Amino acid sequence: MKVNGVPYRTIWLAEDGWGVEIIDQTRLPFEFITVRLENVDDAAVAIKDMLVRGAPLIGATAAYGMALAMQADASDGNLKAAHDKLLATRPTAVNLRWALDEMVRLLEPLSENERSKAAYQRAAEICDEDVEICSAIGDNGHALIRDIHKKKGEGEAVNILTHCNAGWLATVDWGTALAPIYKAFDAGIPVHVWVDETRPRNQGASLTAWELGRHGVPLTVIADNAGGHLMQEGRVDMCIVGTDRTTAAGDVCNKIGTYLKALAADDNGVPFYVALPSPTVDWTIDDGREIPIEERSADEVTKIQGKTDSGDVVMVEIVPDGAKGGNPAFDVTPARLVTGLITERGVCAASKEGLKGLFPEKA
Amino acid sequence: MKVNGVPYRTIWLAEDGWGVEIIDQTRLPFEFITVRLENVDDAAVAIKDMLVRGAPLIGATAAYGMALAMQADASDGNLKAAHDKLLATRPTAVNLRWALDEMVRLLEPLSENERSKAAYQRAAEICDEDVEICSAIGDNGHALIRDIHKKKGEGEAVNILTHCNAGWLATVDWGTALAPIYKAFDAGIPVHVWVDETRPRNQGASLTAWELGRHGVPLTVIADNAGGHLMQEGRVDMCIVGTDRTTAAGDVCNKIGTYLKALAADDNGVPFYVALPSPTVDWTIDDGREIPIEERSADEVTKIQGKTDSGDVVMVEIVPDGAKGGNPAFDVTPARLVTGLITERGVCAASKEGLKGLFPEKA
Repeated sequence: MKVNGVPYRTIWLAEDGWGVEIIDQTRLPFEFITVRLENVDDAAVAIKDMLVRGAPLIGATAAYGMALAMQADASDGNLKAAHDKLLATRPTAVNLRWALDEMVRLLEPLSENERSKAAYQRAAEICDEDVEICSAIGDNGHALIRDIHKKKGEGEAVNILTHCNAGWLATVDWGTALAPIYKAFDAGIPVHVWVDETRPRNQGASLTAWELGRHGVPLTVIADNAGGHLMQEGRVDMCIVGTDRTTAAGDVCNKIGTYLKALAADDNGVPFYVALPSPTVDWTIDDGREIPIEERSADEVTKIQGKTDSGDVVMVEIVPDGAKGGNPAFDVTPARLVTGLITERGVCAASKEGLKGLFPEKA
Repeated sequence: MKVNGVPYRTIWLAEDGWGVEIIDQTRLPFEFITVRLENVDDAAVAIKDMLVRGAPLIGATAAYGMALAMQADASDGNLKAAHDKLLATRPTAVNLRWALDEMVRLLEPLSENERSKAAYQRAAEICDEDVEICSAIGDNGHALIRDIHKKKGEGEAVNILTHCNAGWLATVDWGTALAPIYKAFDAGIPVHVWVDETRPRNQGASLTAWELGRHGVPLTVIADNAGGHLMQEGRVDMCIVGTDRTTAAGDVCNKIGTYLKALAADDNGVPFYVALPSPTVDWTIDDGREIPIEERSADEVTKIQGKTDSGDVVMVEIVPDGAKGGNPAFDVTPARLVTGLITERGVCAASKEGLKGLFPEKA
């Protein structure tokens, strides 16, 4: 999407044709800095230190990391070493493992002098495939926004609430939950986004507010506490969120707090949509309560990063000395609270039947 | 309650018998500093700059402000001037107006040389009356906690979730929502409190965590997003919150985000109690949707106060440059989501009939 008028992806090949450039997302929203990756170590650090985040973008960065490794040394030994190094950066990331296995599967049978070129080519394809999926999610969700806009009438903006960051910054381009919003905005539909700040890591206030704002989409950052009240007052027309994992029966595991918004949407008759690329569906389980919820560091709750008056970006403590913090990172929204799933193949009910209809080969 | 073993109230007469001491709550949780008020201007500043906050404490401070004024100049002119000056500090605070009117009603008929003594006496009574009400709320809520503890079994802690700060810092002592917790804790019932940080002003992370911790009550600070998930997992036995205003039919207006927790409690069968002194019941309205919701400064959302590594307390910006913030300060939890109201006269259903049963003279 655009940053102050200039189109960007989150990862791209440098002009010299071999370096790889990314946006350092740890500096957002305070500084927009791009970083050049020149070897597999650079790629590993970018993933490990979360300069890049979001499952699709992590996968794409790993794929390019393999290409950088092959460019330097295309031996069997280095192929294995690069795979292992990159895999160790975020061992639980499913997309990371998928992209790395895909690259090894492709490169292993090739001769050493074919590997670098093939690796760059496949990395670029992985990026393009992700853009295609997200663009399709955007088109399918755009239709839902257009329908609401038609009902509201010409001059009225469609008010959409989102939680966390499921935007282009988490993918290669377009995003998942934000893709429909960008498509609608680019098509001239007046939209306004209520951006949940999304404590404790504040991906809403920092990343979602930044990317929507830089593309020109009107937004208001709100405390995570505010959404229920706004729905009671009729000031939210729909919710769209992303998901880290969706069960075959439509239960949705997403950033902590998603469940509370789904409850409020249900209580107030506000449609609650979840946007997802089909690879995030876990076809092996039905009941979201089986998904283990990661407990992250309490520091994410007890500290927060911000910019001082003098422009320094600092971390500050926001609790009394010695206070304990608890930090479950995700929650599960039961399918009964989800109006629909927006996928690359269309919109379906959050149910076994709904998903089966769109993905008969999987269910 | 206790601060590191020493019993405190939030306001008290100094040892010299005429100065008034308070805790500067703007410095919490980072510094525990008491401030001496010596004249009506000091009292006005303490209220206006929120060194003291919470309806009962504001009323008590105003009453002592009148006493300080009478101590300096007990003329009719100064009586009126002090009333007007203190009333102007927070014009919408109902308790403030009540305390000031009460003092004028008492002092006006008296001769000038009787006024100072009478004013100090009434101010002390107003404080004691508040302590008595809060203590009774505590006793009534304590019984609910005891019942849950009996069901859970001896060694098991009762896990209580609270939102915002309705503790002794908001009153003269005991608090409202936290009073039952202090009573249970002091009686030896093992309790553990999930403290919602309560964005945007963070009164949970700063004030509730501070006061519970200093008294010795085990607690965990959580993001406002986490409570729903904890309830889904059976890790919350009950919720107790305060209220700024409750309708005659039991709708509860409280800090933004309360409604979301009430929805989650309802969805998971967790009892959701609201603790309130009966003066916060607005007997003139039934439907909480009639209560106008204050929209506060967006700065409260876009900035946050914290302590740096070097110990400085600073304000930092947490959104991209130019991002707009929205800040509705309260929401309304419909009576249907409230398990019971804990008042100084007992616990009742959140309904017209429930309130009528306890307060037949009002309804």
